[in-house]
Amino acid sequence: MRARDLLIAFPSVTVDAPVIEAARLLAGHDLPGLIVVDDDGLPISILPGTQVLRLAVPGYCQDDPALARVVDEKHADAFLTSLAGRTVGEALPSDRRELPVTDPDATVLEIAALMARTRSPLVAVVSEEGLLGAVTLQALMDRVLTS
Amino acid sequence: MRARDLLIAFPSVTVDAPVIEAARLLAGHDLPGLIVVDDDGLPISILPGTQVLRLAVPGYCQDDPALARVVDEKHADAFLTSLAGRTVGEALPSDRRELPVTDPDATVLEIAALMARTRSPLVAVVSEEGLLGAVTLQALMDRVLTS
Repeated sequence: MRARDLLIAFPSVTVDAPVIEAARLLAGHDLPGLIVVDDDGLPISILPGTQVLRLAVPGYCQDDPALARVVDEKHADAFLTSLAGRTVGEALPSDRRELPVTDPDATVLEIAALMARTRSPLVAVVSEEGLLGAVTLQALMDRVLTS
Repeated sequence: MRARDLLIAFPSVTVDAPVIEAARLLAGHDLPGLIVVDDDGLPISILPGTQVLRLAVPGYCQDDPALARVVDEKHADAFLTSLAGRTVGEALPSDRRELPVTDPDATVLEIAALMARTRSPLVAVVSEEGLLGAVTLQALMDRVLTS
């Protein structure tokens, strides 16, 4: 079994896209994260959903949960409105981590090793033709356990 | 909107359970992680899927992907067999991080702040009666964006 056998089409976003669009993709597709691509369609980062929340939630609430509690329910429900006008680029992690990217020939062990090392449940698969899609941890475990 | 409105039933595992059982739950339910509970059913940790892979993949493959590539496809496909006899406890992260746990009254802002701070797409919800279930990042974003 190789990466090409586990591939799923995967939505990608550009660095300049509105981050609220990324939030909608995460919500609608039940994805562990999004692939962020450059103008050539090549992956430059992975955007985990928690990173979108780090941009949306005021810093004082992240530092101290007691302060989040004093915001009333109506205003709490609307917290994603703070993303208006912000881009995907602003939500990306500041530390440049190793990118979980592999090629279509990678074995399940190579993919699993990449997920383990980068702690990413999502690996982008790239060939000479560009981004082909992604392999998710769930799909990998499912196929390995049932094969 | 409160945690109780976003709750889903969520499979939990005990520290002593076989880790292969955790892998099956992750694969079959498309979950970002599992809640690990003690003998009283109270959450003591969150087990991300990548942590199961860290236990399953030999260290030399995690350190150097070129070494993972030399393992042939047949043996690569069988890499999860290394989990035989291992327990969930062995797969838990060694660093004791803050546990993403909240109560049924938490607002979406409180839940989001907790996910952002702990970088967990999964928050366990606990009342005096014990573990009630979990709120996922996807469910939270979905409800906030469509309400």
